[in-house]
Amino acid sequence: MLAITITDQSEPIQLAEKPIPTPNKDQALIKLKASALNRRDQWIRQGMYPGIQFGTTLGSDGAGIVEAVGDDANKGLIGKEVMINPNMNWGEDPAVQSSDYHIAGMPTDGTLAEYIVVDVNQLVAKPSYLSWEEAAALPLGGLTAYRACFHHGQIKFGKNVLISGVGGGVAQFAFQFALAVGANVYVTSGSEDKREKCLQMGAKGAFDYKSETWFKEALKETGGFDTVIDSAGGDQVNTFIKIMKPAGTIVFYGATNGTPKNLDMFRMFWNQITLQGSTMGNDIEFCEMVSFVDQHQIKPIVDSLFDLKDAHEAFDKIKNGVFGKVVMKNS
Amino acid sequence: MLAITITDQSEPIQLAEKPIPTPNKDQALIKLKASALNRRDQWIRQGMYPGIQFGTTLGSDGAGIVEAVGDDANKGLIGKEVMINPNMNWGEDPAVQSSDYHIAGMPTDGTLAEYIVVDVNQLVAKPSYLSWEEAAALPLGGLTAYRACFHHGQIKFGKNVLISGVGGGVAQFAFQFALAVGANVYVTSGSEDKREKCLQMGAKGAFDYKSETWFKEALKETGGFDTVIDSAGGDQVNTFIKIMKPAGTIVFYGATNGTPKNLDMFRMFWNQITLQGSTMGNDIEFCEMVSFVDQHQIKPIVDSLFDLKDAHEAFDKIKNGVFGKVVMKNS
Repeated sequence: MLAITITDQSEPIQLAEKPIPTPNKDQALIKLKASALNRRDQWIRQGMYPGIQFGTTLGSDGAGIVEAVGDDANKGLIGKEVMINPNMNWGEDPAVQSSDYHIAGMPTDGTLAEYIVVDVNQLVAKPSYLSWEEAAALPLGGLTAYRACFHHGQIKFGKNVLISGVGGGVAQFAFQFALAVGANVYVTSGSEDKREKCLQMGAKGAFDYKSETWFKEALKETGGFDTVIDSAGGDQVNTFIKIMKPAGTIVFYGATNGTPKNLDMFRMFWNQITLQGSTMGNDIEFCEMVSFVDQHQIKPIVDSLFDLKDAHEAFDKIKNGVFGKVVMKNS
Repeated sequence: MLAITITDQSEPIQLAEKPIPTPNKDQALIKLKASALNRRDQWIRQGMYPGIQFGTTLGSDGAGIVEAVGDDANKGLIGKEVMINPNMNWGEDPAVQSSDYHIAGMPTDGTLAEYIVVDVNQLVAKPSYLSWEEAAALPLGGLTAYRACFHHGQIKFGKNVLISGVGGGVAQFAFQFALAVGANVYVTSGSEDKREKCLQMGAKGAFDYKSETWFKEALKETGGFDTVIDSAGGDQVNTFIKIMKPAGTIVFYGATNGTPKNLDMFRMFWNQITLQGSTMGNDIEFCEMVSFVDQHQIKPIVDSLFDLKDAHEAFDKIKNGVFGKVVMKNS
């Protein structure tokens, strides 16, 4: 089968020919119809990820059809249309992943291939209204957004929510999820095009974070935010602290702009602000997230679609800014 | 009556003679038996507090006997031994104080006097096992510690808890409260004497934060903390982030060392760490706190006792480091 692997060559991403894996007991072989990229894959390509093992098939997101199972007990799964939970060994504590935790696609083989073998308890039925491309776009980004929005961010109907740097995979889901529950959703983006798209999709306001006064406008317009969902970090954290309602929560699942040079703890304690780190989500949240998406008929935004063979182009695409997910389909 | 007031003189704290105030409807006149100092009073003395109004009687903590009420409906209170809830206008949201909120002792007259008038719904019965000095030591520090420990910190039986900079008013209560619920309580202090006292009182370990390796020892000894209660802030926040268990919570109700020069957001999001600002507590928490103290027969630690007339000495005392509360008694 074809698979996109990470190598020690000058271009680390290579298309390889690998044997189709065989499912053991409690496992299933999935014929993948589509897969999707995450920033994580690009970081692995750039060598900026811990524990890279050359030869691993990349990719955390995938959807397909069960083609074989490792034992008779699971024969009923054959032919089912499924999405794959990318969590490996979350562990028993719903609050936090175990030390054995990892994500599909490093160090175990991932979804950028024609086939994958996974444990049957990682399979969730694909909602029928989703295309293969949309289903493949959902897993890791949707899971991360779901935990950030609801477990940590407590986003609810009528709350004021800011999604910063909308456009990235997780941020787009956070935006759609917050809209779905009826929150007053605002976004920031440096791109006028993305701001305009969000307004069309239902954002109450869209701010250009490159403007020096955006946060003053945001505070004036909203009266403050109950929840901010962020993955940029950096000095902007102190801007968020200024525009929170008292007892508000800033959830961040990344820090692509690095760490802040200061932290306004004084305003934080007086206003009882929470700064909350978040990453991925547990297995129960994965199932809840798929149900939530199904219930609200949310369609993941697909930025662009590539053939599995055109991996280099697809990876280059996510480097250059997207609105939604970069999806690979298998012919 | 005698009262300690803040003035614009070179020594801002002055003993003044004021008329005994008169209670209106739904108010009571309390003959104060004892009062206590907080860092807040010292900050006001140093001019480091917003909205200082000269002539105000200082003091947030007090206990005494109801001597008169403003209306017949409350006549039954006369003669009762009470503690005073120092919250003024917390407001309707239990999560956060209203914008009208302030604390007794600025800008309204406080407890460093022979009498005070307060709303009757700010009175809580003094637990009988507490002396006047102990009861007066409890209100603001106990309230702040209670919210930090339980509402935000979720301290429970068997959890690993670190109280940093033990010795200050709030920290001593956080230490006693965490012990009372059966947590594994550890402390930090720069004073060997304070560390020794805490070990005698039931701390499982006591670390000298002046040592460069204390956090490594702490991590090795405990396996990590579920909750840290802090009021120092500064760069030490990043040390706490290193020694948290995953999904742990750092609660801070002050930042006496200022703000950190950096914040390890990467470790925070991967380990799902919460950094939680906290201040005071709501009126329900005040009642809960007094019940909790009563139920566990907790005796506030009184560092030293002064006559109301010796306010300068008492204030100087809290500048120089204490273990427990500085209490003033009325003769």
